[in-house]
Amino acid sequence: MKLYSIGVGPGNKEDVTVRAARILGESPVVFVPVKKPGEKSFAYEIAREYINEEAEIVELCFPMNYDMEELNRNWKENAVIVREKLEETETGAFIVIGDVTMYSTYMYIDDAIKAEGVEVELVPGITSYSKVASLLGLPLAKWEEGLAIVPASRDSDFDLDEIFEKFQNIVVMKPSHNPDNIVKNLKKHNLEDKFSLIYKAGTEEQKVYTKIEEIENKIPYLSTMLVKKK
Amino acid sequence: MKLYSIGVGPGNKEDVTVRAARILGESPVVFVPVKKPGEKSFAYEIAREYINEEAEIVELCFPMNYDMEELNRNWKENAVIVREKLEETETGAFIVIGDVTMYSTYMYIDDAIKAEGVEVELVPGITSYSKVASLLGLPLAKWEEGLAIVPASRDSDFDLDEIFEKFQNIVVMKPSHNPDNIVKNLKKHNLEDKFSLIYKAGTEEQKVYTKIEEIENKIPYLSTMLVKKK
Repeated sequence: MKLYSIGVGPGNKEDVTVRAARILGESPVVFVPVKKPGEKSFAYEIAREYINEEAEIVELCFPMNYDMEELNRNWKENAVIVREKLEETETGAFIVIGDVTMYSTYMYIDDAIKAEGVEVELVPGITSYSKVASLLGLPLAKWEEGLAIVPASRDSDFDLDEIFEKFQNIVVMKPSHNPDNIVKNLKKHNLEDKFSLIYKAGTEEQKVYTKIEEIENKIPYLSTMLVKKK
Repeated sequence: MKLYSIGVGPGNKEDVTVRAARILGESPVVFVPVKKPGEKSFAYEIAREYINEEAEIVELCFPMNYDMEELNRNWKENAVIVREKLEETETGAFIVIGDVTMYSTYMYIDDAIKAEGVEVELVPGITSYSKVASLLGLPLAKWEEGLAIVPASRDSDFDLDEIFEKFQNIVVMKPSHNPDNIVKNLKKHNLEDKFSLIYKAGTEEQKVYTKIEEIENKIPYLSTMLVKKK
């Protein structure tokens, strides 16, 4: 039994890799993570045209939840669904937005999947921040510059203050989780005109925000922020 | 006149994106950066099968050099070569390993290319560190973890000490540039068994190093280091 966990990129189907496209075409079953049953999946929209027409689509629910006990139960249940399905089909694909190694839903259930005796292969994808930088025509890093990638935490500052102080280039992932802290720190470090926020990079719905007033208290989900000091 | 600057990924041709493959198939000219004339190009090896059979391949020399005046002259010369060629062909592709936005040769000549009146579109690619993490089956970051990506500098410490102190996950790019500083800091922070170094990730020549003795004074070019504290 083998599961390919595939990053399908930030949103445009041409940013899918040749490897991901091939595996999706060969997979008899494709697992699609959703927050609630029947929810529209952005990963599925991106991957759809590469998925084998005869493949079965299996939704896996990952409810928003911060209780570790419930999360572990949910992950175990999903892993059992995957294993039972793969016992029939031998192989399958699990799709996530962006890169499977960066903040992806899949990595949370990786241990549970392996505990079910399933072999796993990770298939990397284009990250949202590589796409954002390429759309803006900016390097994420060059020469001896560093790049910090930090999540906008719900509960903590994740030292955003320190990160903005030390790094030349900063990516804030999931900025919708804490707009107040981000705006506060942009102002503190005089970076009000040094950021770009992109919503759904590379899709038809893409929007770019570069004014601080536009993001105060209202950063949309599925956006990524890039801060460059020069 | 339009130039597509394309990241062709870390080394395996299946890690090229559908977009990159399509543009390479349509480009009448492909610019290949090399250190000296006639040098074998890894980017070209990766991209070769997608390049239009009738396309002209134009080598652009970027000698190893740290004199800004000479660099600027070299970049200007290369930009003129690109512009003159695109005046004939209208469009062309410039290929680099990995992602075009991360430490790529292309971004150095971006200004000079634009100064020649050439329109540029950046095409993102899979980074070496996404590939390394996927091959190791490890997340680069999850939950509220951050990720620091830092170059191994020739002349400075780039605060590797501080980075190893503060971040859960660290990628060291171009580690061949300063093995001594890396080894020293791995030891200082008791990270001797928390790193993986991969040479030519995803290719037939791939090698993985996880023992500190193996990397003392001799980290190979085209390798990437991933450090994960847990």
